[in-house]
Amino acid sequence: MNTQERPRAVVLLSGGLDSCTTLAVAAHEGFEPCALTFSYGQRHVVEVAAARRVAALFAVQRHLVLNVDLRPIGGSALTADIPVPKAGPDAGTAAGIPVTYVPARNTIFLSLALGWAEVLGAAAIFIGVNAVDYSGYPDCRPEFIRAFQQLANLATKAAVEQSRPLTVRAPLIELTKARIILLGRELGVDYAATTSCYDPSPAGLACGACESCHLRRRGFEEARVPDPTVYAGRGGAGS
Amino acid sequence: MNTQERPRAVVLLSGGLDSCTTLAVAAHEGFEPCALTFSYGQRHVVEVAAARRVAALFAVQRHLVLNVDLRPIGGSALTADIPVPKAGPDAGTAAGIPVTYVPARNTIFLSLALGWAEVLGAAAIFIGVNAVDYSGYPDCRPEFIRAFQQLANLATKAAVEQSRPLTVRAPLIELTKARIILLGRELGVDYAATTSCYDPSPAGLACGACESCHLRRRGFEEARVPDPTVYAGRGGAGS
Repeated sequence: MNTQERPRAVVLLSGGLDSCTTLAVAAHEGFEPCALTFSYGQRHVVEVAAARRVAALFAVQRHLVLNVDLRPIGGSALTADIPVPKAGPDAGTAAGIPVTYVPARNTIFLSLALGWAEVLGAAAIFIGVNAVDYSGYPDCRPEFIRAFQQLANLATKAAVEQSRPLTVRAPLIELTKARIILLGRELGVDYAATTSCYDPSPAGLACGACESCHLRRRGFEEARVPDPTVYAGRGGAGS
Repeated sequence: MNTQERPRAVVLLSGGLDSCTTLAVAAHEGFEPCALTFSYGQRHVVEVAAARRVAALFAVQRHLVLNVDLRPIGGSALTADIPVPKAGPDAGTAAGIPVTYVPARNTIFLSLALGWAEVLGAAAIFIGVNAVDYSGYPDCRPEFIRAFQQLANLATKAAVEQSRPLTVRAPLIELTKARIILLGRELGVDYAATTSCYDPSPAGLACGACESCHLRRRGFEEARVPDPTVYAGRGGAGS
């Protein structure tokens, strides 16, 4: 297929396991993926470098890294001076939405993606949210994604004046982490290039104890795929 | 009324005539207005100083100025190297949505307001959009505001887990510019502190020729209120 002919899609690319798999899905479906990454004052800013690695591996032509500092808003362990919970009930999904929730983050990221999608003439936005092996964040649920798509098609000049409707796609939303990993492997994702930890070491190594590490590690175990993650203090790959 | 007892509202405050009137409405209705202003790479960044003046006049306790540079997204005469249309059909509302439209701007601003509203425990977001004397922007219409409120109440931990629903208020949406000015005067707004021009002079004076200047000037004329705006090249107040 000629590059010129592919419809464009904005893909939210954090550099984590889910968003990288989502990028692979968009490319596999025949879209030209235009990657959008946010430097938002996150504790785990190391993920921005991971996003650049993944974009390069997939030969993404357009990769926009936007600076949107959410620290003045605060309210989250990822952007404010609140500790990231480690192993134990606090790190799990059982006791409600954890403190790693960033207020309105997916709404903010999708809104900025919407602006770029309009300028690019993109037909879709892809987001790697997941409502199975996840932390219970409200803005990862199917009803949220549907409501955003409805809003998007009222919000822009492209949708209203030029009848160019936009689809918001969340292809992983109903998959387990293990299924996501198996899908990504089929589509050529190199998970060694990705990072999921919320609280990495100064050298960028995964802590192995936060909820995001926990979900990722369990995903590899259930998928029976070797975990390429390098955990801090373990001196090597594997877990 | 004791300050502690007032429910909080996030008010989007650009420094323009409409948003300043909206701030006055929120305060008049008994909310503690928490003002949110964006420095987004706009050509008329002089409006941020106007927002600070207005917030001070209303003794706003919390005024957050967020840096969210929309220039890398582009696509608008306000954020990219596209000229602002001046007097004539191009500057008017007749020929569809003009090039001063910023892709998804109100969606982006409301999303960030949503994040801050959640952290503050605010009950409402106020936005000064207007669908009468306006430029035809899609994200100024009542159906857009309703869709955003619906999204907001699916998006946050506050709404989902703590049953703290959020109301999105657009009190000016059906008023003419003249009615807005009369309302603001009643509520003590000093319009000399505000700025509306899309393309001000280096000294910050209004051009008098862009659509925003045109709508503002006509509003004062129709309201029979003296226009306090200082236009570039006119050497004084009034028009």
